[in-house]
Amino acid sequence: MNKRNIRLDIIYDGTKYLGWQRLQNSDKTIQGKIEQVLSRMTNEEIEIIGSGRTDAGVHGRGQVANFYTFSQKSVENIKEYLNQYLPKDIAITEVTEVGERFHSRYNVTKKTYLYRIWTKDFPPVFEDPYTYWYNKPLDIEKMKEASLLLVGKKDYQSFSNKKTKKSTVRDIKDITIEITDDELKIYITADGFLYNMVRIIVGTLIEVGEGKTKIQSIKDMLEAKERANAGERAPAKGLSLYKVYYD
Amino acid sequence: MNKRNIRLDIIYDGTKYLGWQRLQNSDKTIQGKIEQVLSRMTNEEIEIIGSGRTDAGVHGRGQVANFYTFSQKSVENIKEYLNQYLPKDIAITEVTEVGERFHSRYNVTKKTYLYRIWTKDFPPVFEDPYTYWYNKPLDIEKMKEASLLLVGKKDYQSFSNKKTKKSTVRDIKDITIEITDDELKIYITADGFLYNMVRIIVGTLIEVGEGKTKIQSIKDMLEAKERANAGERAPAKGLSLYKVYYD
Repeated sequence: MNKRNIRLDIIYDGTKYLGWQRLQNSDKTIQGKIEQVLSRMTNEEIEIIGSGRTDAGVHGRGQVANFYTFSQKSVENIKEYLNQYLPKDIAITEVTEVGERFHSRYNVTKKTYLYRIWTKDFPPVFEDPYTYWYNKPLDIEKMKEASLLLVGKKDYQSFSNKKTKKSTVRDIKDITIEITDDELKIYITADGFLYNMVRIIVGTLIEVGEGKTKIQSIKDMLEAKERANAGERAPAKGLSLYKVYYD
Repeated sequence: MNKRNIRLDIIYDGTKYLGWQRLQNSDKTIQGKIEQVLSRMTNEEIEIIGSGRTDAGVHGRGQVANFYTFSQKSVENIKEYLNQYLPKDIAITEVTEVGERFHSRYNVTKKTYLYRIWTKDFPPVFEDPYTYWYNKPLDIEKMKEASLLLVGKKDYQSFSNKKTKKSTVRDIKDITIEITDDELKIYITADGFLYNMVRIIVGTLIEVGEGKTKIQSIKDMLEAKERANAGERAPAKGLSLYKVYYD
């Protein structure tokens, strides 16, 4: 009997978790929770492959994972079982059977992250765990201008909190800043992201918006290839993995 | 020196509270929290007048209150102070100085409550405290038809959990059922509401939607003037005071 390859589309509130990736000594990871329920459902030891990790406190709106199983349960039943037994801050929006070669991480073509900044002069009562309250004036036009300098295939070493010998070149396809009644929503799409990259980019854009950092210094930051040159890292709570793209 | 009359527009997440109304033996009320902060700010013993009570677990999106004070603080400063010292699940969206005769409760002309029902086959990860997950098919056309029978100036005794010698006639101006991607949103507007009235109306409409109750029985329920004849009360979490109207 052949193993089936099952794709999961997942949303989660990351507030109470240590992040996506399974940890040996903690029960508080998204991957761990889903594997637990799937293993009980199938009587197999299921490992799921996520499109990538998210950090502690970061949310998932369009996370994707896949796993292999001998179980013959229908995709409808798998979805129902998962949504019944997972904690209520993790939900499975879609379950689909995919070809055996589909791999949630290797096959990613690009990803979009969303960062939400609450801009009102009163706190985000109903949205508190999902948006960063920044209660000072921000020059959004300057932020937009600065964001353009961060688009393209560049070395983003200065915008990562991890040193690595691997390439730190990534291709940012687009940064869109949307203004709503209550919020700034910053969507960043790239072929891949370095550790903490979105949060450091957002923190840097905020510093441009408040006038602490000049637009032109973005170029120097990129050239420096040193973390110290870029802005502060914005808090995890405002960030979510918004969408993962496949061919 | 004359007392000033100050109006507050308030939003709150009712999840952790015993309701709007101040209680002698508990710190867990919205009114109590706001009065505490205002009394500290003014060095007076402030009592606020709310447009009406909300029950434990019910949310406020457009609650209105007013209070009298000798304080000469500007409305901007009052707003800033309140939003700084209130718990983060209570926010003041507007502070305005109003005429001495403005009374948040007596001057109400009508109110709108919103009840949210989550209709997806996966749980409301980011909206869990604010929407009631009802995971069975609902015939929305039937619910709309039934709702029409509940509009008008009628005796709603059957739709209240409190017996009273006072009049139980209320004038429901409108019931609107909005269908979104994820939810049913039921807006009910009336000149006033009996105890638990919105939750019992919504519970009854759900029973019509699932086929348990016939549309025609709405008329019998109204005529019976007995609580036992109407449907179950829907959970508090889906309900919020949406808007209060004044002339």
